[in-house]
Amino acid sequence: MPFRARFSYRVLWADCDSNRHMYYPNYFKMFDSSTHNLFEQAGAPVPELLAAYGLRGLFIVDAHAAYRAGCGWGDEIAVESHISEWKRRTFKVSHALWNGDVLAAEGHEIRVWGVPHPDDPERSAAGEIPAEFRARLDGGDDR
Amino acid sequence: MPFRARFSYRVLWADCDSNRHMYYPNYFKMFDSSTHNLFEQAGAPVPELLAAYGLRGLFIVDAHAAYRAGCGWGDEIAVESHISEWKRRTFKVSHALWNGDVLAAEGHEIRVWGVPHPDDPERSAAGEIPAEFRARLDGGDDR
Amino acid sequence: MPFRARFSYRVLWADCDSNRHMYYPNYFKMFDSSTHNLFEQAGAPVPELLAAYGLRGLFIVDAHAAYRAGCGWGDEIAVESHISEWKRRTFKVSHALWNGDVLAAEGHEIRVWGVPHPDDPERSAAGEIPAEFRARLDGGDDR
Amino acid sequence: MPFRARFSYRVLWADCDSNRHMYYPNYFKMFDSSTHNLFEQAGAPVPELLAAYGLRGLFIVDAHAAYRAGCGWGDEIAVESHISEWKRRTFKVSHALWNGDVLAAEGHEIRVWGVPHPDDPERSAAGEIPAEFRARLDGGDDR
Repeated sequence: MPFRARFSYRVLWADCDSNRHMYYPNYFKMFDSSTHNLFEQAGAPVPELLAAYGLRGLFIVDAHAAYRAGCGWGDEIAVESHISEWKRRTFKVSHALWNGDVLAAEGHEIRVWGVPHPDDPERSAAGEIPAEFRARLDGGDDR
Repeated sequence: MPFRARFSYRVLWADCDSNRHMYYPNYFKMFDSSTHNLFEQAGAPVPELLAAYGLRGLFIVDAHAAYRAGCGWGDEIAVESHISEWKRRTFKVSHALWNGDVLAAEGHEIRVWGVPHPDDPERSAAGEIPAEFRARLDGGDDR
Repeated sequence: MPFRARFSYRVLWADCDSNRHMYYPNYFKMFDSSTHNLFEQAGAPVPELLAAYGLRGLFIVDAHAAYRAGCGWGDEIAVESHISEWKRRTFKVSHALWNGDVLAAEGHEIRVWGVPHPDDPERSAAGEIPAEFRARLDGGDDR
Repeated sequence: MPFRARFSYRVLWADCDSNRHMYYPNYFKMFDSSTHNLFEQAGAPVPELLAAYGLRGLFIVDAHAAYRAGCGWGDEIAVESHISEWKRRTFKVSHALWNGDVLAAEGHEIRVWGVPHPDDPERSAAGEIPAEFRARLDGGDDR
């Protein structure tokens, strides 16, 4: 069972557009925030990952959202997230964004384990994901 | 041949995150801005659509981006956009985001032709896309 | 004694810029969010004001911030706000932004009670602030 | 005569809030972008300053805006900026934001010349502004 976490947020006026709903790119801010929360809840906050592994970032290579319902100013929303797929150098974070008990959006991010390029540290490259990072995010029951 | 337009933009400091690249949700701001530009260039700016058809909005139901390269502060970028697919009530806008001559991202938006719900004007519903709107965005060569 | 309220927030990655601190315009998002929270806590949430008084908005005419310390990603911040000055058609909201127990910024917003212009409802004009709105925000002890 | 520069921008849908005007904190994004443009036009772009002087950043210590008129989606705006005041370690950038020929806002930023703290390079401190940077931004007539 993958480790799961829930990021709660109250929609700000600043998040909404002229249609009086959360501006659609801001759903990805919510996904991103939920990913950061997921790692923190799993005991692997990004600042520690950067320090421990020489990681440069968990760069996005793919992002998707399907929108089912709007979110307005003041709404109490929550994003439920977990890692749904692992490859050697990338992983996929799946998100469900709830507005109260309405599923308002679903989506994913694919992120790469970004490290300095071995031949040119000015550039970044995809590195192998450390087993202990994966173990933390995989939960503990089924390994 | 679909009508195509190009939205040019210079990346602001405000668009970048702590990794010193354009923050990934902001690519969708670029897509959204390019869609608005596309309609305007085709002679169908959104404010006129709202007034002419009782349209409420061109609401997003699906958004996707694949990221290939970063964009940094001050970079001159351009988004090339066209409508790549039509259904009765929705259409798909395809985007290619160039950073100079590097293809930095590709993606799409699926948007619905949002009108007042016939039974309850407080709510919105998907309406049929007017033929003349489609004609403008379809270009003129192949109809 | 003016009514006071406290808006709590955890700084998102999305709020930070390439200097790895909250981007300076985002402090005003915090002030704005705190003003909305202040009214809600006082029993006068903006949506109710719009409905009850034909208010169009509490438009900003002046905004200021003095920055004393940075806020970084994940920091638990709080904005303490109250109305520090009243005029017939405008009022001043004073804000103190705390990062833990460090005063990170102070500032204000001056807002106008925006109503439809009596001669041309397409435009907005400054209207007189209703006594009962002021009473709620003034607190109740010293009147 | 101080050196002056003009930053032109077309307001995006993404910049506007539920009142269908540019969200008020976004005026500061415009000021910030105009300051970056001012330095670039004067031949002192921030990336070169960072490299040449060991500068860490031109951190904001004070920001103010007075709003006179709104800016809506699609409006062609321009910010005219110059440095209006110098101190040993800080300077003030004055901004006028035009919406077409309407003065929509005026404001300022006070920025500090941020360098590594001499006793603890983890921290930043205010450093003395180099004479040649000031000379570039002061224009050339009155030196």
